[in-house]
Amino acid sequence: MKAPNKIAHIGIAVKSLEQVLPFYTEQLGLTLLGTEEVESEQVKVAFLEIGESRIELLEPLSESSPIAKYIEKRGEGIHHIALDVDDVAARLTALKDNGVPLIHEKPKDGAHHAQIGFLHPKAANGVLFELCQYPKSPDQDE
Amino acid sequence: MKAPNKIAHIGIAVKSLEQVLPFYTEQLGLTLLGTEEVESEQVKVAFLEIGESRIELLEPLSESSPIAKYIEKRGEGIHHIALDVDDVAARLTALKDNGVPLIHEKPKDGAHHAQIGFLHPKAANGVLFELCQYPKSPDQDE
Repeated sequence: MKAPNKIAHIGIAVKSLEQVLPFYTEQLGLTLLGTEEVESEQVKVAFLEIGESRIELLEPLSESSPIAKYIEKRGEGIHHIALDVDDVAARLTALKDNGVPLIHEKPKDGAHHAQIGFLHPKAANGVLFELCQYPKSPDQDE
Repeated sequence: MKAPNKIAHIGIAVKSLEQVLPFYTEQLGLTLLGTEEVESEQVKVAFLEIGESRIELLEPLSESSPIAKYIEKRGEGIHHIALDVDDVAARLTALKDNGVPLIHEKPKDGAHHAQIGFLHPKAANGVLFELCQYPKSPDQDE
C-alpha cells in the first residue's frame, strides 16, 4: 500500500466554536480559513490552517449529530484523524478484503468535493481514521 | 502570535506497539522511521512518517508512565497534538501572561534535541497541545 500523502486534517469535537476559536486564533496563532455548515452531519465546521494540514473544529447543530453523541459520551476532544490519499475507493476495497472493520465500504461525498471514507475505530484500537481524496487541480497532474 | 509551522506529530496512546504497528504500516501504508525508549516518560515510542508530520505511537513501559495513567482513565486513543514552532520559550511566556493554563511554564528537553512545552488540556477544552521547537540545521537558517 502506497503511503498516504499527508494529514488532511485533525477533527476536534467542541460544544461551541464561538467559545473555543479565540484560543486557536489568538493564543496558538492559527489562521481561520472559514466556517461551513454541513447539513448531512448536522455540524458547523471551522477550518484552521496548520502547515500542509488543517485543524477542523466541529460543533454539533442538533442532538442527532454524531458529534453531539460523541461529546455526550466522551466529552469534548480530538474526534478523528483524516489522511489525504490518492485512491480512497481502492483503499477501502483493499482494507475490506484484509478484514479491517470499516464504517464506509465505498467512498461518499465530503466537504470541498472530496471523496471520503471512515474506518471503524476498532480497526485502530479506538482511533477514528478518515481517508480523504481531493480532486486534482489541472496543474497538480504530475 | 505568528502561526505555528506545521503539525510536528500526533501522539497516540497504545497498550502494545507490537499489536498495533501492523495496522499502521500494512493497512494504512505508513513508513516506520524507528522506535525509541524515553526513560523520563517511561514510554516506548514508534515514529511513523506522514507528509511533513509524524504519528507517534506511545506504549507505556511501567504503570508510573503518564501514558499508562491515560489509558487506565480514558482507554487507548489520541493523546496529544504537537505543533512545530520557532519560539517555544517566548510562546510559553506569552501564554502564561495571557492566563492560559500550562503544564510547563518553561521549555524542557524532548526527544530529537527538541525544546518542548505542554499546555494544560483545560486550555483547549480537553485537547492536550504540545509546542515543539527543533534545532535549525545550518542550511535552514533563513
